[in-house]
This record gives sequence, structure tokens and C-alpha cells, in this order.
Amino acid sequence: MVMTTNQDQSSPPSFLLEELAKLMGARIKGDPGIRICGLGSIEDAQADQLSFVSDKRYLPLVSQCKAAVLIVPPALEHLDRPLLISAQPYLAMARAAQLFWEPPYLPVGVAATAFIGEGVHLGGGVSVGPLAHVERHCRIGQRTRVYGGAYLGCNVVVGDHCFIYPGVTILDRCSIGNRVIIHSGTVVGSDGFGFAQDENGRHVKIPQTGIVQIDDDVEIGANCTIDRAAFGRTWIQRGTKIDNLVQIAHNVVIGEDSILIAQVGVSGSTRVGKHVILAGQVGVVGHIDIGDGVRVGAQSGVGRSLKAGEDMSGSPVMPHKDWLKMSAILRHLPQLREELRQLKMKVQELDQVVHEE
Amino acid sequence: MVMTTNQDQSSPPSFLLEELAKLMGARIKGDPGIRICGLGSIEDAQADQLSFVSDKRYLPLVSQCKAAVLIVPPALEHLDRPLLISAQPYLAMARAAQLFWEPPYLPVGVAATAFIGEGVHLGGGVSVGPLAHVERHCRIGQRTRVYGGAYLGCNVVVGDHCFIYPGVTILDRCSIGNRVIIHSGTVVGSDGFGFAQDENGRHVKIPQTGIVQIDDDVEIGANCTIDRAAFGRTWIQRGTKIDNLVQIAHNVVIGEDSILIAQVGVSGSTRVGKHVILAGQVGVVGHIDIGDGVRVGAQSGVGRSLKAGEDMSGSPVMPHKDWLKMSAILRHLPQLREELRQLKMKVQELDQVVHEE
Amino acid sequence: MVMTTNQDQSSPPSFLLEELAKLMGARIKGDPGIRICGLGSIEDAQADQLSFVSDKRYLPLVSQCKAAVLIVPPALEHLDRPLLISAQPYLAMARAAQLFWEPPYLPVGVAATAFIGEGVHLGGGVSVGPLAHVERHCRIGQRTRVYGGAYLGCNVVVGDHCFIYPGVTILDRCSIGNRVIIHSGTVVGSDGFGFAQDENGRHVKIPQTGIVQIDDDVEIGANCTIDRAAFGRTWIQRGTKIDNLVQIAHNVVIGEDSILIAQVGVSGSTRVGKHVILAGQVGVVGHIDIGDGVRVGAQSGVGRSLKAGEDMSGSPVMPHKDWLKMSAILRHLPQLREELRQLKMKVQELDQVVHEE
Repeated sequence: MVMTTNQDQSSPPSFLLEELAKLMGARIKGDPGIRICGLGSIEDAQADQLSFVSDKRYLPLVSQCKAAVLIVPPALEHLDRPLLISAQPYLAMARAAQLFWEPPYLPVGVAATAFIGEGVHLGGGVSVGPLAHVERHCRIGQRTRVYGGAYLGCNVVVGDHCFIYPGVTILDRCSIGNRVIIHSGTVVGSDGFGFAQDENGRHVKIPQTGIVQIDDDVEIGANCTIDRAAFGRTWIQRGTKIDNLVQIAHNVVIGEDSILIAQVGVSGSTRVGKHVILAGQVGVVGHIDIGDGVRVGAQSGVGRSLKAGEDMSGSPVMPHKDWLKMSAILRHLPQLREELRQLKMKVQELDQVVHEE
Repeated sequence: MVMTTNQDQSSPPSFLLEELAKLMGARIKGDPGIRICGLGSIEDAQADQLSFVSDKRYLPLVSQCKAAVLIVPPALEHLDRPLLISAQPYLAMARAAQLFWEPPYLPVGVAATAFIGEGVHLGGGVSVGPLAHVERHCRIGQRTRVYGGAYLGCNVVVGDHCFIYPGVTILDRCSIGNRVIIHSGTVVGSDGFGFAQDENGRHVKIPQTGIVQIDDDVEIGANCTIDRAAFGRTWIQRGTKIDNLVQIAHNVVIGEDSILIAQVGVSGSTRVGKHVILAGQVGVVGHIDIGDGVRVGAQSGVGRSLKAGEDMSGSPVMPHKDWLKMSAILRHLPQLREELRQLKMKVQELDQVVHEE
Repeated sequence: MVMTTNQDQSSPPSFLLEELAKLMGARIKGDPGIRICGLGSIEDAQADQLSFVSDKRYLPLVSQCKAAVLIVPPALEHLDRPLLISAQPYLAMARAAQLFWEPPYLPVGVAATAFIGEGVHLGGGVSVGPLAHVERHCRIGQRTRVYGGAYLGCNVVVGDHCFIYPGVTILDRCSIGNRVIIHSGTVVGSDGFGFAQDENGRHVKIPQTGIVQIDDDVEIGANCTIDRAAFGRTWIQRGTKIDNLVQIAHNVVIGEDSILIAQVGVSGSTRVGKHVILAGQVGVVGHIDIGDGVRVGAQSGVGRSLKAGEDMSGSPVMPHKDWLKMSAILRHLPQLREELRQLKMKVQELDQVVHEE
């Protein structure tokens, strides 16, 4: 297979303002012919770059911002400089940033030092980096990038346009959709944690014979662990985004477009709905249902099923509003007890007075 | 070294029902000559497979289960289909699943692209996968599998019949027993976290010169970290099972047959007894003793030693029964405070009435 | 490049007692010509080794300690055996241990099976281990060790005298100072977790175009994740020490000489000061400031900025002293409620008596 560099020859992307406006669905204020060569934060953007102000709070920084053009909400279109006006400036910024982004260097083709097992099928434009490992009978879709040091076990299937970063491990038979991004150090398809106890209290391993299925447009952070099912599959559905160091146990199902922040743990066979947000360090017990649109605050412990739309916090969880009130009082618990003690004495005293009479 | 495939020639394992019954210690109902070719869940098992019903709750699924034979407890032996009857159906299922399990593909022998240092000793039937790394003076026991991309540092000793999965790192001089399973991304023998402060509040590293010792039949999940001792050893004893993303600090000792669920952290020099269960996300401080048979609920914080058999929850921990009562009230704390406030007013009023008289 | 072994020819380090005393800044009691060949704990030190007693609690072990010489505080200089007397015996021990420490084996030079990209610059005395991966245009400083299986992306800069352990991943353009130690499995420079929501509640990735900068004398444990900035840099400043499985989100800044214990998570754009201690499993929300010298107890949840010197615990955090009192009462909450209930009845009874009269 020929090694071709896909980035050396190409110069970094640049766009005319009018092209950007069309691609982003934004209105222009100023010269449509301005050439934009990148995107930077309001503090750091350079004179040929685009920047953004999503909120009035950042207005004080605008006068010193060197950017050629600013993305702003309609409320700021009075600013006297070239603008891209969008009702959703943060979303517009994300889309612009994607236009300028260049992926980490990896030539198309299979590096000489990669290991490719028998019967592997590589789609057009696939890259496999140095010292990467693609075991027998893998199938990798078009233009997917398997960076150096990544490991795909036997019969793994990866779709089109995926990024499998250095040091990712995807174990045998797992299945990855299209446009999936998996960051370094993440393990997909390790054994679920299942044991039966024998007569002597020893733990007898239940072989984990299922797989992990990850659907289109999922992104998984670094050093996560997603265990294969005991039977059947552990399943991450379309569009869900998972941060770093998250644990997904066997047979868990996570619905579409959900968000799991860093260090969350979801125990076995739990089903999480669509558009759910689990904040950082949340723990969820096994065998429960988390309804669509549920939001759980950081460090919460979810010990029971939650209905769609519930907004919960605490360990164990309670409605977020209750948790806010509760946790404001928590600190005053010693004072509460003292007040109760004094009240008891007062009542005792009153009691004596009343009954002595 | 010759590469031989250990799985290509063999057809998947199958057993007669009478063979299974003998191997599992179960009674047969039905034709002992039925041939069984695998094991599946009650929903997914195929017509030549074994399945299991451990509990009456799953009875509604039985009528649609296609499995040739069901493992059931004696209470369900009235079911009118071929059965394997066992007093411990879950344990029987685990044992049957082990009979059918085929390990992830890895030929016996050393892959051409593996790195093997000087003076390495490999036992009979050992497999070392592509791009695996076995440093000088390692000793690896019989039929142990070191999958592609795993790393064994200098003078590491691994016993017989172990699984060292892709991307595992075992650092210099650590010692692994027999039948140990270590999942991908786990690091054994990283430096313990030890510093002395100098006159300026800077942290001076205390070199960590000890090792990690892992005894027979231990299983360690994915992306765990088990630090080497400052001096001496960090020690995981026989039969203990550790889930994913667990942190074991330097000089910790974990007794036999204990269970550490995902994302647990155990701080330095703590001793955990036998048959202990630490549920998910539990944190344990350093330099304490956790007695045999202790159970600690999810997300708990263990800040002091616990006696054998204690059943604890909460952060900081309290007896689990107390925690259940406490946490039921927690949510009502605002109401409690309000009741106290009203009672104070009432008492004040009474006080006035009584003393005015 | 020639492979030379740096450890085979050399015998392990040994020192005369007078040399050690000078290097450690300690006073001698006994024969300055005693030769010391290593350092061990008070239980395990051998007859030619140094050991240490930092505290009177360990005095009962002294009589059986075989060590040639003990490091002791002035309060113990009456002990009738060879001594090194230091006002800070723990610090003296750390310095002595560094003198005797030998790093894990790695010859100077580039291993034959390492991958070195175009335009890489290696300083004098650099080691790159087998199957390590150094991508194009990396610059590695003098005597730095990149162990087998480590991965450095394009344009990564690493300073002098660093240890990059097996299985570490440092992604493109990140910058590492001098004398930095990064333990196995850690990922530096994975994408920050940033998304904008589109009209349909789908998550649109914001490309993360910044870097991670790690300054001199930082140590990072195993299986940590340190995300690259959205724009600009995520920044770990000089001398900070990070334990295992810690999550540092994009654009976080950690000041000098801070300590982050295992399983801590710090969310995006938060600034942590100098000499801060975050104990195990602490979670910190994004976009806040943690002042210099702040200490946060294990498992705490920091949801707001903290002033310099604050000592906090709990989730949400409160002053550590308040937390101690609060958590002592927590367990007695059911009893508190019962007392309140009884008091209400008592008051009701009194009320009737008073108003009947």
C-alpha cells in the first residue's frame, strides 16, 4: 500500500467571509471578500482570524480583539467592525471551527510498522498508523483513521470517517458506527464484571460473550472503559458524547444524544434514555431505567429508576430543588441541634411551671 | 518460534446434556443425549443452546425461549421441557459458560513483531501477540497469553494460564500468580504517590522501590492503576476480583476473595480483609484496617478502620441501617427546620401566657 | 544509533556515611567510614543499608532493625547505634532514597523497533525504548527516557531528564518541561469536552485546537487524562504532583507545587492556585478560582470559588471544621427528628393545659 501524505502538500484552509456566512447560515456585516484563515478566542485571535462573542459579558474584551471578523448574536450587531451575525453564535462558532480544523497528522495508507492480520478489509482512504494493530477479519470503513499504537481485535467492525486515536483498544467483535471518535487509552469490549459465588464464597467467572455496539456520531473521551455484555450487547446510541474516565458496565444501554461527564460510572444492565445529562462523578446502580431528558447533578448517586425529565441531585438522589434547599441547611445542622436542645430545656421548664401551679 | 493457530482447526466446543450435567453437578430432566453447542440468555438463546432461569421473575420469558435446555432451580423442575436442575442455577450457569467460552484469538508462540528482551523465559504453550513487549529477564508460565500491545517490564514474573490483555502495562519486577486475568489499559507497578516537603514547600520525590504482587486467581478490570510499594510490596491476594478504573495505592494489601467495584480508590498502606465488598466509587483513606467480610455501599467514604463484618454506607461511613434512615430524612431537612421554627414560636407564645398569668 | 546499556556495567550505587551526611545535610553519630549500599524500611532494611525513624511511634521496631545506620530526628539521637541526625528525617530519607534509586532499565539510544518520524530532534543521552513511537518534528531534551510503547505525537516538545513511561500518550503539539515524570497509561492532549447544541438538541463538536503545557518538575500518575485547550492551553505549573486516574479538563490551570490525589476531577477553565491540596475523589466545577494554599477534603464537591487558605470539605463544600461537626450529627438525624416529634407533642399537651385553665 502506498504511503501518501495528506497534509504536507495542502496549505491550511482559508475562506472568504461570504463563503463562511453561507456555510454557517449567518448574516454578514462588512466586506464579504475578507479572507479568513482560522479561528481564535477573543483574547488570542490573530488579524486574519475569526473570533466570537456569545454573550454581553465579554464585550469589554472586544475593543482589544485583533480578529478580522467577530461572530455575534443579533443583540450585538451594532458593533462597528466586520461581523457574522447568528441567532446561535456558539453553534455558529462550532461550525466555523470545524471548517478550519485540521486533524492530527496521519498519512493515508498503512504504515510499514503496523500489524495487519489476515482477512482484514480496509475501505478507501483509510489510514493505519505506525505500530497500530488491526487483528484478523477486521473491517474498517472509508477514510477512517487508526492512529499509531491503537489496537483493534479480531472481527472488529469500524464504520466510515472515524478517529481511533493512539492507544485505543477495541476488543474482538465490537462494532463501531460512522463518524465515531474514540480518544486515547479508552478500552471498548473488556469483560463485564460478572461472577457467581461457589459454596466456599469464591468467585466463579461468568464468561462475557457479548459485544459492545457504538452507533454513529458517538464521541468517547480518553481512558474510558466500556465493558462487553455478558450476553447480547452493551450499546451506546447515536450522537451520545462521553467525557474522560467514564465507566460503562456490561449490558448498559445509553440512548441518543446523551452527555456523560468525566468520571461517571453506570452499573450493569441499566438503561439510560435520550438527551440525558449525567454530570461529573455521578454513579448509577445497575438494573434501573433513567428516562429521557433526565439531568443528574455532579457526584450524585442514582439508586433507583428516574422518570423522563426529572432533574435530580444528591447521594442518594432527590429532586434538584430539594437538594439545593437541603444542602444549604446541612452546614447549619449543629446549630439546629443546639436550638432543639435549648427548646427542650425551655419546654421542660414551662412544663414544671404549668404543673406546679 | 513457530506460529501455530490454536483455534482455526478446532470447531467450537459442544457437549452432550449428560456430559454437562456431570461437569456441572446438576440433575437432568429429558433426553441425556441432547447435544448442546453454546449458552445464551433467555431472550437470545438459540435452538442448540443452553439457557438459564435463576428466579421465578423470569418465568414469563420461558415460553418463548428457544433454548434446547434450561438450567433451573429445583422450584422450577415442573417445567415441561428439557432441564438441568441445580440448587445454585446461577453458579451452574457460570460453570457451563466457562465450558463453552473460547478466548480471544491468539496463536501459541511469539509473534514476529513482538519484542522479547534478553534472558526471557517462556513456559510451554505461551502466546505473545504482535507488537507485545516482554523486557529482559521476564519469566512467563505455561500457556499464559500476552496479547498484542501488552508491556511486561524487566524481571516481571507471570504464572501459568494467565491472560494479559492488549495494552496492559506491568512494570519492572512485579509478580503475577497463576490464572490471573488483567484487562486492557491496566497499569501494575506505577510509582506510589510519595513526597517529602522541603523547606520551601516543594515536593521531593520518595523513590518507590517496592513491587506489586498479585496472587493466583485474581482478576483486574480495565484501566486500573496498582502502584508499587515505597518499600516492600503492594499485595492483592488470591481470588480477589477488581472492576474497572480502580486505584490501589502503594503498600495496600487486599485479602482473599474480595470484590472492588468500578472506580473505587484505596489509599496507601491500608489493609483490606478477606471477602470484603467495596461498592462503586468508594474511597478509603490510608493507613487503616478494613476487617474481613466488611461491606461498604456505593460512593461511601471510609475514613477509619472497620471491624470484621461491618456493613457500612455514607461519607463519612456509618452503619448501613443508620445510613438508610438518615438518607430518607435528609431530603426533609428543610421541613424539619421549619417545624422547629414554628415550635419555637409556639413555645415563646406559651411562655408569655404562662408567665403573664 | 548505537545501543549502549547504561546499567549493565555499573554496579549499584554505594556511599560512605560521611558522603551521605554531606549530600543530605545531616549530622553523623558513629563511624563516618561505614559503607552504605541502599535504603530499606525499618522492618526490611539489610545490614549494609540505611533506614529511618521519623517518629517515636516506631521506636519499638528499632531494636530489631538490621540497618547499618538510621536516619533519626534530634529527639532520638540518644539511640546507641550509628545515626544520621536530621531535623527533617523524612525529607532526609527522600533525598537518600534518590541517591540510591536506579531507574527502570532502558539503554541510551533508539531501539531498533521504535518508530521515529521525520525531522525528530533527540538531545544527547536520550533513550527511546522498543516499540515506542516518536512522531515527526518532536524535540526531546537531553537524557530524557521514552520507554517502550510510549507515544509522542507530531511536534511534541519534551525537555531534559524526563521519564515518559511505557504506554504514555502525548498528543500533537503538547509541551513538557524538564525533569517531568509521566506514568504509564496517562493521556496528555486528548480533546477537551466541548459541544454546541443545534436546533434538534444534537451535539456539534467544537474542535479543540489548543495544547497542554506541563512545566518543570511536574509528576503525573498513571491513567490520568489531561485534555488540550479549546483555544490556548491547559497548563500544569512547576512542581505540581498529580496522582493516578485524575481528570484535568480543557483550559484548566493548576498552579505551582499543588497536590492532586487519585481520582480527582477538575472541570473546564477552572484555575487552581499554588500549594493547593485536593484530596482523593474531589470534584471541582468549571470556571471557578481555587486560591493559593486551599485544602479540600476527600470526596468533596467544589461548586464555587474558594479564597486563598480555605480549608474545606463536603459536597457541596463548607469549612472543614463545620463539616466535621455536621458529619458527626448526620448519623443522629433520625433521633433528632424523633426528639422534635416528641417535643411537638409535649408542647401541644402544654398548650392544652395552659389554654384550658
